[in-house]
Amino acid sequence: MPIEVADPQPVAHVAAGAAASLSHVRRDEPRVHCLTNTVAQSLTANLLLAVGAIPAMSLALDEIDHLVARSAALVVNLGMLDEARLPAISRAVSVAVEHRIPWVLDPVMVDRSPVRLVFARALLSHRPTVVRGNMAEIAALGREAGPSALAEDIGTVVAQTGPVDVVCDASRSIPLRSGHPLMTRVTGLGCALSALVAAFCAVERDPFEAAAQALLALGVAGEMAAETAAGPGSFQAALLDRLYTLDAAVLAARRRAE
Amino acid sequence: MPIEVADPQPVAHVAAGAAASLSHVRRDEPRVHCLTNTVAQSLTANLLLAVGAIPAMSLALDEIDHLVARSAALVVNLGMLDEARLPAISRAVSVAVEHRIPWVLDPVMVDRSPVRLVFARALLSHRPTVVRGNMAEIAALGREAGPSALAEDIGTVVAQTGPVDVVCDASRSIPLRSGHPLMTRVTGLGCALSALVAAFCAVERDPFEAAAQALLALGVAGEMAAETAAGPGSFQAALLDRLYTLDAAVLAARRRAE
Amino acid sequence: MPIEVADPQPVAHVAAGAAASLSHVRRDEPRVHCLTNTVAQSLTANLLLAVGAIPAMSLALDEIDHLVARSAALVVNLGMLDEARLPAISRAVSVAVEHRIPWVLDPVMVDRSPVRLVFARALLSHRPTVVRGNMAEIAALGREAGPSALAEDIGTVVAQTGPVDVVCDASRSIPLRSGHPLMTRVTGLGCALSALVAAFCAVERDPFEAAAQALLALGVAGEMAAETAAGPGSFQAALLDRLYTLDAAVLAARRRAE
Repeated sequence: MPIEVADPQPVAHVAAGAAASLSHVRRDEPRVHCLTNTVAQSLTANLLLAVGAIPAMSLALDEIDHLVARSAALVVNLGMLDEARLPAISRAVSVAVEHRIPWVLDPVMVDRSPVRLVFARALLSHRPTVVRGNMAEIAALGREAGPSALAEDIGTVVAQTGPVDVVCDASRSIPLRSGHPLMTRVTGLGCALSALVAAFCAVERDPFEAAAQALLALGVAGEMAAETAAGPGSFQAALLDRLYTLDAAVLAARRRAE
Repeated sequence: MPIEVADPQPVAHVAAGAAASLSHVRRDEPRVHCLTNTVAQSLTANLLLAVGAIPAMSLALDEIDHLVARSAALVVNLGMLDEARLPAISRAVSVAVEHRIPWVLDPVMVDRSPVRLVFARALLSHRPTVVRGNMAEIAALGREAGPSALAEDIGTVVAQTGPVDVVCDASRSIPLRSGHPLMTRVTGLGCALSALVAAFCAVERDPFEAAAQALLALGVAGEMAAETAAGPGSFQAALLDRLYTLDAAVLAARRRAE
Repeated sequence: MPIEVADPQPVAHVAAGAAASLSHVRRDEPRVHCLTNTVAQSLTANLLLAVGAIPAMSLALDEIDHLVARSAALVVNLGMLDEARLPAISRAVSVAVEHRIPWVLDPVMVDRSPVRLVFARALLSHRPTVVRGNMAEIAALGREAGPSALAEDIGTVVAQTGPVDVVCDASRSIPLRSGHPLMTRVTGLGCALSALVAAFCAVERDPFEAAAQALLALGVAGEMAAETAAGPGSFQAALLDRLYTLDAAVLAARRRAE
């Protein structure tokens, strides 16, 4: 049974790891291939660019093998699961598995769409590196058994976001309390977070750490953005600004201030 | 013949209704299914989230019946009328009509595309709850007879936007003068407005009132956003910020200031 | 062999031309049809609206001939080259060539996708008015012979962007040093720039001048936006604001300050 680790020491560890991963993403500029819904594409690409990663979003079957094979990570998002996306996702996942490229599954709205749930369960058999979803999505995927049980069952990392985030794998679990309610008022931010997890997986070997670091980084940037935002419009711009400058010094200063 | 109602009393009534509807949208968080063009999707979703509604945008035929049937309102936008969108729109409208879910038709560019005009006219036979378009679009749909004639002919509400907005049904008509020219410099804002009308129809029984309230709310938010904006970029963010905090107190304060 | 023209006189000439073209775009409100990837659509449309042009983005085969024939310029962007886009692009280019409408080719990522490179080379045979790409894309298209050789070979204008931009045709070449590194952190900005080149081609007869003017205008707006931006989020909004107000006076004041 996973052990829930208590604050604050583990979070200090995650913050230090997040700072290192941000620095490595800026240095390595990993290519992250994103198969995501059209609503979230622009924010996802801008968020990756803000941390120094290079997004690509092509769905075309005649180039997707080539592009995914040359990427450092893949994110697969089930929003807008139309006929063009289904075969592209299947191909991209096969290529990622074959080339041992880390890939993140974002099971958007599987709790509300039976066909998506069936498709998401089929993808789980290919063992995504990380599954990132909200409570309702993770509950639907894991037959209500909770994120740790799902992680153990699939042999993957599960990153569940909500008022308190939880990252777990078969043997570890960590709660994360960063973030701000305005983050729920920006469309596609969860999808973009899944892409950030993928970018971190490109530079951090342990996907449990990578997922926790990405959630913490976005959460801290969100808290800082909310301090100056007048609403969700200015918040979105400030969030990208904050991610762009987030580093070890900023993370350390915030931990001291807490 | 519809009677044109004079300012300012009717607008005070619309402002009070808009405040109530904003409050009800925040309380009920209605799901609004949006079949809209890819250019406008992100702003449409962000505008709905700013007022507290929950957007969904799937076009996939194997889940659209299920999703629309569980929505509180539907908006159908004819921008980018490609092959994936045509059958999705037909199915979604059938489900909305069957389940008596209010739906808004946004006949984008029917004045410039003959095929869209034919398709939009076919949709009119399903009696949209509200038709929201600009002057050229409403003129094309109504064979140049004006919004009141179109409303009477179809038995629907017509919300025509422009330098002066007009909302009418078979027996009523009200002009609305809120808004700002910068609103024409933000892509997809008309489309997003149609989604806001749909969200208001989810909480306000009378679609004539719902449409007038949504136009007034966005117009006032636009006026307030323009006061601080340096151009269309900062305007778009400020508009979302203003909608997020728009309520009875803000609307009343503005009416007193006029 | 093209002659490289030295600063600063030629740039003063380009700045004066850019001011004139901006003024003409605002006056004429040219319709620019954009066949572009879904990631860049919204920014492309907003950038065109910021300078006063009217974007349209339909891919539907049953209306694209009609719409392109009534446009003042066309931009064809190869990002996300899916099955819906390929026939739409072929049709749109044919209509543009037939009606002598200026069209801009943006060969996105042809350096990384062999299928795109084949398709882009086929499009070159229809002689785009301007080819706008980054160094790697132009190198791939021109078999590493450089932008001037490609321009001479095709008989077109090539606008290559990067730390230093270069615009050239068979007999002329001009380097442009405006711009800011934050421009590389906004997704779709290169795509939007190609659309701006198309808009300028609608009002300026010489496509060499139009391309140089558009690159200079966006570069100056980018420099000014960077002066106040805290990162890529606020930068994107400021860039649209700066373009919206960019005119002869602003351009002249900046040249005096340099």
